[in-house]
Amino acid sequence: MTSSPSCSSFADQGLSAAEIADRFDGEVAGDPGRRGHRLAPLKRAGAQDIVFAVSRRHLDAARSSHAGIVLVQQDLAPVAALDSGRRSYVLVANPHAVFAHLSTLFHSRRDFRPGIESGAQVDPAAHVEASARICAGATISAGARIGAGVHVGAGAFIGAGVEIGAGGYLYPRCVVLEDTVIGRGVIIHSGAVIGADGFGLAQEQGRWIKVEQLGCVHIGNDVEIGANSTIDRGALDDTIIGDGVKIDNLVHIAHNVQIGAHTAIAGCAGIAGSARIGSHCAIGGGAGILGHLEIADHVTIHAMTLVTRSIGAPGHYASGVPHQEARTWNRNLAALRRLGRPGR
Amino acid sequence: MTSSPSCSSFADQGLSAAEIADRFDGEVAGDPGRRGHRLAPLKRAGAQDIVFAVSRRHLDAARSSHAGIVLVQQDLAPVAALDSGRRSYVLVANPHAVFAHLSTLFHSRRDFRPGIESGAQVDPAAHVEASARICAGATISAGARIGAGVHVGAGAFIGAGVEIGAGGYLYPRCVVLEDTVIGRGVIIHSGAVIGADGFGLAQEQGRWIKVEQLGCVHIGNDVEIGANSTIDRGALDDTIIGDGVKIDNLVHIAHNVQIGAHTAIAGCAGIAGSARIGSHCAIGGGAGILGHLEIADHVTIHAMTLVTRSIGAPGHYASGVPHQEARTWNRNLAALRRLGRPGR
Amino acid sequence: MTSSPSCSSFADQGLSAAEIADRFDGEVAGDPGRRGHRLAPLKRAGAQDIVFAVSRRHLDAARSSHAGIVLVQQDLAPVAALDSGRRSYVLVANPHAVFAHLSTLFHSRRDFRPGIESGAQVDPAAHVEASARICAGATISAGARIGAGVHVGAGAFIGAGVEIGAGGYLYPRCVVLEDTVIGRGVIIHSGAVIGADGFGLAQEQGRWIKVEQLGCVHIGNDVEIGANSTIDRGALDDTIIGDGVKIDNLVHIAHNVQIGAHTAIAGCAGIAGSARIGSHCAIGGGAGILGHLEIADHVTIHAMTLVTRSIGAPGHYASGVPHQEARTWNRNLAALRRLGRPGR
Repeated sequence: MTSSPSCSSFADQGLSAAEIADRFDGEVAGDPGRRGHRLAPLKRAGAQDIVFAVSRRHLDAARSSHAGIVLVQQDLAPVAALDSGRRSYVLVANPHAVFAHLSTLFHSRRDFRPGIESGAQVDPAAHVEASARICAGATISAGARIGAGVHVGAGAFIGAGVEIGAGGYLYPRCVVLEDTVIGRGVIIHSGAVIGADGFGLAQEQGRWIKVEQLGCVHIGNDVEIGANSTIDRGALDDTIIGDGVKIDNLVHIAHNVQIGAHTAIAGCAGIAGSARIGSHCAIGGGAGILGHLEIADHVTIHAMTLVTRSIGAPGHYASGVPHQEARTWNRNLAALRRLGRPGR
Repeated sequence: MTSSPSCSSFADQGLSAAEIADRFDGEVAGDPGRRGHRLAPLKRAGAQDIVFAVSRRHLDAARSSHAGIVLVQQDLAPVAALDSGRRSYVLVANPHAVFAHLSTLFHSRRDFRPGIESGAQVDPAAHVEASARICAGATISAGARIGAGVHVGAGAFIGAGVEIGAGGYLYPRCVVLEDTVIGRGVIIHSGAVIGADGFGLAQEQGRWIKVEQLGCVHIGNDVEIGANSTIDRGALDDTIIGDGVKIDNLVHIAHNVQIGAHTAIAGCAGIAGSARIGSHCAIGGGAGILGHLEIADHVTIHAMTLVTRSIGAPGHYASGVPHQEARTWNRNLAALRRLGRPGR
Repeated sequence: MTSSPSCSSFADQGLSAAEIADRFDGEVAGDPGRRGHRLAPLKRAGAQDIVFAVSRRHLDAARSSHAGIVLVQQDLAPVAALDSGRRSYVLVANPHAVFAHLSTLFHSRRDFRPGIESGAQVDPAAHVEASARICAGATISAGARIGAGVHVGAGAFIGAGVEIGAGGYLYPRCVVLEDTVIGRGVIIHSGAVIGADGFGLAQEQGRWIKVEQLGCVHIGNDVEIGANSTIDRGALDDTIIGDGVKIDNLVHIAHNVQIGAHTAIAGCAGIAGSARIGSHCAIGGGAGILGHLEIADHVTIHAMTLVTRSIGAPGHYASGVPHQEARTWNRNLAALRRLGRPGR
């Protein structure tokens, strides 16, 4: 992760087409000395802006734009077909990934001014690295360990015994409860709650008795957790989020869930207790995964799908129903609701 | 928006049936001098209370209630049929809207005592209008501009460069991140997070790389945003919420989404990235709208519908499946799950 | 609810098999003097650990574990079949409930150090019992009444006139807005928002006008409310949560909803306005319940079910669709979408 000063200097001087090609193993068509200073969307890009094209449609749009530098997929068009007199093209294998890397070089909003602001509550028995920043209104509880370069935003709560690895960025008002262990370079957005009690209940004569939740949450390196998402602590074992997992907003991850490395989970999805999700999975928005299931690596779950049994093989799985005009849908529903009648 | 003192005086003196009719272009049946001091539900209304009736059923309930004043739809019943000796009726075109206006006159819970409480963190480089109120524990960052009469609740976070128009009311512990622009009279409920990073990721050799989110959030006038809802900043362009949009709790609005004026979105709905929703739409609870779609004006999406393609025409759209007894549903499901088999 | 010191002493000395049997009306097979000091999951239990078995599978796992004490269902196996030479068994009617009770005796994470921390904002017109604890950054507004032994976590917000009964535990950054009334022993997790405005709107010439929400929220005894869940205040009447109700994370409960005693609601469920849910119900994750419905006692709603009409009889209800491989599902969908065509 890049610190603020180098960010600014990148943005000030920009990068030439040749420098981008050099850095990301690409090839220039057009003026290699042309400099890009900002990333921009195609439709409002100017001569100092960098855009990217991963499809024919993008490339056509780039051609009719004012963009100075276009990151273009190597095999999208022959070099001769590019209007490289008007702008510089950098041909790379993965323009979107290069764009992502440049976004961090040029534009990271995250800064790392070290120090503890007055108005932060830091327990004397907490350990905060000198290069970390604790903003006003944040709480760092006893026994917490805040790593190098970590930013803890205003009003964030860090519970007793929590460990946060180097380079983490915690946005204002997020909550990390006791004994959570967080790896390096983890981003936690505002309102996320890590380590609340799992929903552990026992029935006794028609009443629910709370089962104290004695496990913790372990979060790997380079994880990102979206705004207002919740990851509960384990009941007896721990809830485990693998390296590189990316979690969108308003996602619920219940107790004892394990999520394999580099899995992405879109907004409003919910994963019930003790489910084990593989690595490199993609879980669509609003999907629900029942408890105690196992899902293999490289599984894609479509939006608003309900996963009710384990999935042993990679592939795409779905149960979402696309909209229809309500009148049409109601007729289909009427038929669906008697589909299983004996004798039909 | 009405300030506390005038609220109280309205509630103290009340309004007569004639004054209500005058103010909202209605007609009185019964004693025009009868005064109403409070709004009440039909079943526990008393002689000083105002109720409303928009249906036959309401009107029957009003007749057997103790309510002093009834706001009634003009064409619901002939005046002769109203028991206007026992109570006063005010006949108006839209009783519910009149009731809403009276609710603000009599009862607004929102107050506007100006001033910065001790314990608020206001950056010297922020601008706070003298008539605004900043409560203890709130954070106002550098470059933020807080308009006239704005209330920023305890523990709310206002990021750098945020603009909040006059008359806004921000409840405790909401979060508005940097560079968000908010119009006049906007209400943001507790726990809402405006301007968190969109879920922008690029794939590179099986890993996700973060794409920094460089856009902002623009929110129009008279918008209301529910508790724990999230509205992400744009990737390169901005996320835009039109005038008069009303958003319920736990709603997720992803990066680059545009929502037209006077659209309402019910709880737990999710709208994926770059979707463009029209004006005067109504989106039901738990609905999901996929990314990069366009939805026309005056579209109604029913609860728990999954919208997978653009919708070009006004109307009602649905895909939610109503419950059945589980045994019946399971039989229907069994048939559904083999419905597409070739040879069937 | 047990205070920290007695917790520790239980954990230090442990409980013997005989003491557990005595306390929970069970019977010992094996050494009655063997002591358990901790609860543990079967797979990593040691000689000082207590586990539980409610199924044949559990019992087999217990037999091959190192657990010292096993809580076992009375009729699961004849005593002769237990390896009670190697470990002690305590035969009880409901091992999971006993385990839950032991979890609180041994392990409660919740402590009750009394006092008001410096950095807490307590209004002079609030009443805080001497045995309560108010952490730094918490706000207690005028007229609030905080009961005996209540813990209000860092940054929690308690609005004007709120009442919180004895023994409550409010986690950091939860929000309880004005006039909410909360019973005894209630746990509110981080980020939960109680008492935000309901989504009350009237239409007037294509625009939405806010209807001020004048009701409150009443919460019974022994309720638990999950992280980032929201419970809105009533429009005119109150929103009512019965005794012993357990609510998971990211659940939305709209205005005027009534929930009967001992009902449990799993994560991401949403309940629309004025719905009345019975007692002893179980509502699955991601389920949606439309407004103004009535649901009888002892109703179970499966995950991701949409409840569109009232349910008058106890039983199981569902409409969730389990996943299939996307190709298979798409074929079924294609058939479903023309199922209601006339002439079919």
